[in-house]
Amino acid sequence: MKGRSFIHTGEFKREELEKLLAAARAFKSGARRDRPLDGRQIALLFFNSSLRTRTSFEVGIRQLGGGVSTLEIGAGVWNLELAEGTRMEGKAAEHIKDAARYLSRVYQAICVRAFPGLDNYDEDMRDSILRAFEKHSKVPVINMESSLYHPCQGMADMLTIRERFGDKPVRVLHAWTTHPKALPTSVSNSLVLAALQMGHEVTVCHPPEFPLPDPILKQARGLKVVNDFARAAKGAQVVYSKSWGSPAFYGRRDEETKLRCEQYRDWRIDESFMSATADAIYMHCMPLRRNVEVTDGVLDSARCAIYDQAENRLHVQKAILTELVG
Amino acid sequence: MKGRSFIHTGEFKREELEKLLAAARAFKSGARRDRPLDGRQIALLFFNSSLRTRTSFEVGIRQLGGGVSTLEIGAGVWNLELAEGTRMEGKAAEHIKDAARYLSRVYQAICVRAFPGLDNYDEDMRDSILRAFEKHSKVPVINMESSLYHPCQGMADMLTIRERFGDKPVRVLHAWTTHPKALPTSVSNSLVLAALQMGHEVTVCHPPEFPLPDPILKQARGLKVVNDFARAAKGAQVVYSKSWGSPAFYGRRDEETKLRCEQYRDWRIDESFMSATADAIYMHCMPLRRNVEVTDGVLDSARCAIYDQAENRLHVQKAILTELVG
Amino acid sequence: MKGRSFIHTGEFKREELEKLLAAARAFKSGARRDRPLDGRQIALLFFNSSLRTRTSFEVGIRQLGGGVSTLEIGAGVWNLELAEGTRMEGKAAEHIKDAARYLSRVYQAICVRAFPGLDNYDEDMRDSILRAFEKHSKVPVINMESSLYHPCQGMADMLTIRERFGDKPVRVLHAWTTHPKALPTSVSNSLVLAALQMGHEVTVCHPPEFPLPDPILKQARGLKVVNDFARAAKGAQVVYSKSWGSPAFYGRRDEETKLRCEQYRDWRIDESFMSATADAIYMHCMPLRRNVEVTDGVLDSARCAIYDQAENRLHVQKAILTELVG
Repeated sequence: MKGRSFIHTGEFKREELEKLLAAARAFKSGARRDRPLDGRQIALLFFNSSLRTRTSFEVGIRQLGGGVSTLEIGAGVWNLELAEGTRMEGKAAEHIKDAARYLSRVYQAICVRAFPGLDNYDEDMRDSILRAFEKHSKVPVINMESSLYHPCQGMADMLTIRERFGDKPVRVLHAWTTHPKALPTSVSNSLVLAALQMGHEVTVCHPPEFPLPDPILKQARGLKVVNDFARAAKGAQVVYSKSWGSPAFYGRRDEETKLRCEQYRDWRIDESFMSATADAIYMHCMPLRRNVEVTDGVLDSARCAIYDQAENRLHVQKAILTELVG
Repeated sequence: MKGRSFIHTGEFKREELEKLLAAARAFKSGARRDRPLDGRQIALLFFNSSLRTRTSFEVGIRQLGGGVSTLEIGAGVWNLELAEGTRMEGKAAEHIKDAARYLSRVYQAICVRAFPGLDNYDEDMRDSILRAFEKHSKVPVINMESSLYHPCQGMADMLTIRERFGDKPVRVLHAWTTHPKALPTSVSNSLVLAALQMGHEVTVCHPPEFPLPDPILKQARGLKVVNDFARAAKGAQVVYSKSWGSPAFYGRRDEETKLRCEQYRDWRIDESFMSATADAIYMHCMPLRRNVEVTDGVLDSARCAIYDQAENRLHVQKAILTELVG
Repeated sequence: MKGRSFIHTGEFKREELEKLLAAARAFKSGARRDRPLDGRQIALLFFNSSLRTRTSFEVGIRQLGGGVSTLEIGAGVWNLELAEGTRMEGKAAEHIKDAARYLSRVYQAICVRAFPGLDNYDEDMRDSILRAFEKHSKVPVINMESSLYHPCQGMADMLTIRERFGDKPVRVLHAWTTHPKALPTSVSNSLVLAALQMGHEVTVCHPPEFPLPDPILKQARGLKVVNDFARAAKGAQVVYSKSWGSPAFYGRRDEETKLRCEQYRDWRIDESFMSATADAIYMHCMPLRRNVEVTDGVLDSARCAIYDQAENRLHVQKAILTELVG
């Protein structure tokens, strides 16, 4: 995998993903303590806020012997132009092409976080910022969450399921919940696609107005979709909840908020939901809003795997950086 | 002291504080050059701005062989919810409990700066943010200045007095001065309590409207309080000046500002004040407003110990991290 | 050069600049891989945004074995007072004198970026922030771009010309172009003065209203000034374009913007301009606005040296830090 970018798990074969998971487990157990990034410098570029991603990348890179620079676009670093061939008379002081080419001269990998704008569906579906970096960078680009994908989260999720259930496939329920804000689908997209690729049985449950985006559904062979929250829990071994904004409500977020906050206010994971499952573990990528998306009772129970998930970000990212950049 | 948090000097025995001071002197003199944080990762969490604290922690951690991540809450990292059991529908995207639990998985210590809001007395007196981190973190929490305490500053102050006067107790005058803004009492609280614990004779001088908070006064056995600025200097071997907001003016800061800026505008340390002392040194934690709190003449004289104090932050923090986290 | 500050190339002899260029080439080729900053800590202080400067300093310092802290004044660090003797009742919480003195206790060098305000000509010409740091710091101060100079860029430019043309002097055209905003002259000042000092033949071409500042012209012996854009290309071996604000339009930037955006809108480097040169390379310090300052055709051609220039920042800065601080 040396020299490749990591934008989407679906661009890697299952055996490659397995190799990454094995390396992650070796880092986590302490079996591996090597420093494959010795003498390497990695840039973290944030177009959006972060807690876990930023810290787990910073720590992981240093533990692998590398140096890390954390940059926030629009705060200490100016805005970047995305359009090709344009006359740059607007706000952006530099073209993404030039930033990517420069950064490739000084860093041995570029990690980028760029959330969807959630107001232009086609643009979001093109994953333009990540793909522009991939196109113009001479060094590997690692996706730290884009419009479409959050592959490092997806890998941490796969590792967490493995740790709890071993190598056998499990029944994963990905349950939409309510939330005061419209959120990206990137975590859901990567979870669903990675879980299917790893052989799990995946059901997504959401209100009819909140499907995952079409380009994802087209890739998601074998995905089961249900809309009945009350019955969704049955048989699940993993309940992974998350809120996301509807692809159908671009430009009409106020209407959507009303739906989410009024009509679907009860779409929340609680102890009674969990007790209908097949003794499922509870997963979430964090950050999460306690008692809105999921109750304190579920979160503070032994079934809750969210802190393992978060910690596993560190280990899978070390594996990815080692294999692609080391 | 291994594994303990460092929230307040008063939670440590005098012999423990002495051990920290001895380690700090060894780091400062170059007698100690070991790297007890090798392989350790430390997070610095700032809810408020910083110059000395941030830089001295960053430098100290690297000198001890550790890795350091600096995070600013509300700038690049979202806001955190503090209330237990609440339905999180407000601004905060994550509960402090979940942030603390996650950070404990990736870092070996969490250093936190969280100033008082200065508009809710009871909340400020609970030191809620630091105590929440202490409660939910599995790793030591170091206080980088909270609503109530600035224990690293207090230790740097004790080291500075030792350097100038040796082991014998001295007469410390802590003098309130004017300032355009209402400031926290944390530095004053830690100074007064640490100095008393180390056996010094401590007098605090302030206008009648500007006492230190009650919970501090209750701990401060032997503290002498005076209100006569003109006569306070007499006999002092250390003049440590600082401005702070009155605990009595919560919700009425405009009135307080008037008092500070009009009635007490002359509460300022100048050469004539210093010449009434017993040849005292001048101390201040910085940042300071020249010619408002203290004159250029005092600051640029040989009696001024503020740069030693600031440098000593580095050495005492290295001692604290070594003993608690190393 | 040990212990000296690096504010302006003109404060160094040509043989010193040559020594720095030689060290830069050794770092770039890999001939030098030593770590002269081992155990050293360097502060980067940004009063303004940055991409290349910040990243190349961070990477270079780590590659030399040093530790680096990046600080943004006004974001996470409070504002600094510049005036001597003033009663500090305004916005600034700390005097630059005290910040510089403190930072000298903890860091072994202080690198500062402080752009001109562009609204007070005399203040800009004094380069007050850099000079205040130089005055009050006990350790070397490195200029990361000030009101007047960008000496690290100037050195990177000299290295780039050397790489393309060898040791012989070349004909450098520094061409003003249009831009939506008034920009500092620091890059131009350092380019012109360093190129003259290195023995190159330098012509600057700009509209009559856009001369370089007087204090620079006084130092720039042998500089040829022309105002005819159409004929300027002839004979040039290097075309280095840049926009800058006019020293004559302080306080009248709106009028200037009109001139720049209307009357001088065609002052832009394109393929036809380049074809009139003596097969010149194209240079620019970046960031740049594509198709406003220079066309995609020039930038994406083999003649374009801007990515080399940017990369060379890293190597010359490593040389400077090694010689002055190592």
